[in-house]
Amino acid sequence: LLDNADVAKVFPSDVQDRAKKLLEDVGSVGAYSHSKGAASIRQDVADFIEERDGHATDPEMIYLTAGASAGVQLLLSVVVSSSKVGIMIPIPQYPLYSAALAFNNAHAVRYELDSQHDWAVDVPGMSKIVDEERSKGVDVRACVVINPGNPTGSCLSEENIRDILKMAYEKKLIVMADEVYQTNIYKPEELPFISFRKVLKDFAKSSNEADKKIADAVELVSFHSISKGVSGECGRRGGYFELTNMSADVEAQIYKMASVNLCPSISGQIGVDMLVKPPKEGEPSYKLWKEETDAIHATLMERSRKMASKFNELEGISCGEAQGALYLFPEITLPKKALEKAKEEKREPDLYYCLRMLDATGICVVPGSGFGKMASDDGKVFL
Amino acid sequence: LLDNADVAKVFPSDVQDRAKKLLEDVGSVGAYSHSKGAASIRQDVADFIEERDGHATDPEMIYLTAGASAGVQLLLSVVVSSSKVGIMIPIPQYPLYSAALAFNNAHAVRYELDSQHDWAVDVPGMSKIVDEERSKGVDVRACVVINPGNPTGSCLSEENIRDILKMAYEKKLIVMADEVYQTNIYKPEELPFISFRKVLKDFAKSSNEADKKIADAVELVSFHSISKGVSGECGRRGGYFELTNMSADVEAQIYKMASVNLCPSISGQIGVDMLVKPPKEGEPSYKLWKEETDAIHATLMERSRKMASKFNELEGISCGEAQGALYLFPEITLPKKALEKAKEEKREPDLYYCLRMLDATGICVVPGSGFGKMASDDGKVFL
Repeated sequence: LLDNADVAKVFPSDVQDRAKKLLEDVGSVGAYSHSKGAASIRQDVADFIEERDGHATDPEMIYLTAGASAGVQLLLSVVVSSSKVGIMIPIPQYPLYSAALAFNNAHAVRYELDSQHDWAVDVPGMSKIVDEERSKGVDVRACVVINPGNPTGSCLSEENIRDILKMAYEKKLIVMADEVYQTNIYKPEELPFISFRKVLKDFAKSSNEADKKIADAVELVSFHSISKGVSGECGRRGGYFELTNMSADVEAQIYKMASVNLCPSISGQIGVDMLVKPPKEGEPSYKLWKEETDAIHATLMERSRKMASKFNELEGISCGEAQGALYLFPEITLPKKALEKAKEEKREPDLYYCLRMLDATGICVVPGSGFGKMASDDGKVFL
Repeated sequence: LLDNADVAKVFPSDVQDRAKKLLEDVGSVGAYSHSKGAASIRQDVADFIEERDGHATDPEMIYLTAGASAGVQLLLSVVVSSSKVGIMIPIPQYPLYSAALAFNNAHAVRYELDSQHDWAVDVPGMSKIVDEERSKGVDVRACVVINPGNPTGSCLSEENIRDILKMAYEKKLIVMADEVYQTNIYKPEELPFISFRKVLKDFAKSSNEADKKIADAVELVSFHSISKGVSGECGRRGGYFELTNMSADVEAQIYKMASVNLCPSISGQIGVDMLVKPPKEGEPSYKLWKEETDAIHATLMERSRKMASKFNELEGISCGEAQGALYLFPEITLPKKALEKAKEEKREPDLYYCLRMLDATGICVVPGSGFGKMASDDGKVFL
């Protein structure tokens, strides 16, 4: 077999140390782990969250998953108990949410993101929707927020997040924060990534006594993944969710559901460990890791900026500046005749446009209506 | 980096060739595959099935999954459309089934395996249960069969399988065949593993015209896994299911559900490839593979036989001979006083026995009622 010198040719010493530690803590990649995921990896996730947010967290409230999608589906299956239940989803949205809600026979309660203000969440508007839906008998229980936004590429401000949490407190909503793009931030000075959990726990420092209560009251589930960001290891199926302030009863059900699934793949779990505990400055593999992740981040940002600026040069197209995630969601004003033609063909105007583009250029794009964002009456559509 | 001579120290040439082929066909383990799983691996599964059964199959009807459990859950979620739906499960059963049915709000329609006849399926009894449940308004749609049996350790005879399929044809039931223990066969001459699919497709050769129809009529889902058998790579989360005669409408829904889950972990998929395409005689890694798998198989069989014979030496315990899977399900006759005491404590008699054993010896065993097998009136319980 290989001797130490051979191994050193491939793996720097800190990588070997990490492998040994994982082997000791987790054991074989071929055996089941704890259904929540290996304890030592959940501890590393807890350390990562504490360092990121400045608030300690409990590794028992962290569940490793086969990607964020598996976590979202598990949570929705627990929260939706009947077809009367409604879950708020942003429009435009990532289609996982509408699919999972359709599967669970639940109401998708739509709230529109504000395309005129960098796709911010219109919190008073949301609050109104909760009241309206509840008055119609819909049991609105939770609200999904995607930050950074998929497919909008927006980053929510701290103020916007604070308002959402206040509203969730008043309306007794669980907040489901999809934060899988938290490393894709393109304006770190102006719009850094701030987790919902940090903003929630910061309420405890408020001078306002009423606000203080919010910190320990709002039930929050935060999702993260190794599939996105600069990691992009989607084929390994790794991710986690963290429960904050979750009622013990509900947590017990979540644990039961996780147990039915036995455990997420161990190599996906190890992927999570790499994500939350990258090489540290001074360690032998740090330089290469830093170069590679910086280069990937720079490329993604560069592409996103270039695309946005090119979109804005085109006639009839306007596109917000890239703030984060991997996405741009350009707006296109279609001429009246195109709208008429689409109507004639009984197609959504944006789908009509996409099909015409496909025929004319061979370029395949997805209509905004696929993300739930329909054309406005004056012919504005999104792609 | 390592040169070829170094690599050859660790990996025989056929292993290197396989890795290169997988890299070429599947690409990175870090990227999503097709939602059904990588095409080349599904082709290898199809080849394996054809060689095993003597009937060709279509790789498009094979779905790779994160273990058999994930496949079972996906299938049940598609088959169960309302709380009126009933799915037949064997008693004793593997608790995944009752849990998944409870989750889907469906009826678990129980059929008892025959403990007096090596846990065979009592097909006329089953048929009667279908009629009874349907007359009560339960929409009995499918029937789960676990062969080799978990937790019974039984192997179904070809005749028994044929009768089950005939009954499924007459009663229009989907058959869900959990065949994850197909390599754990301890009496290969008397009771070899025969897949439900082979028996189903063999109906086409029948001299009876009516029986011939069965081959292309009964909807069958067959499950396999890398977690069991002599492979035991459960932490990698790999498995597959194969659809036979499935209606195109239902198959489209299954495909949609698989797509929502994106794809199973690539390393789990590669595990499936290893399972269905082990080293061939003459290849450099064959000898080691053969030695290791034979040794594991022999150890499992040896342990199972030894346990059965020891159980049968104990007073009040009787246990069927080990036929397959990893399990024995010994029967214990409890004295009258123990039954009375259990009643006093308001516990199932087998649970009472298990707790007393734990207190007295420190040995922790699971009561048969945990698998749905309750005590008989004359004090017979199972562990």
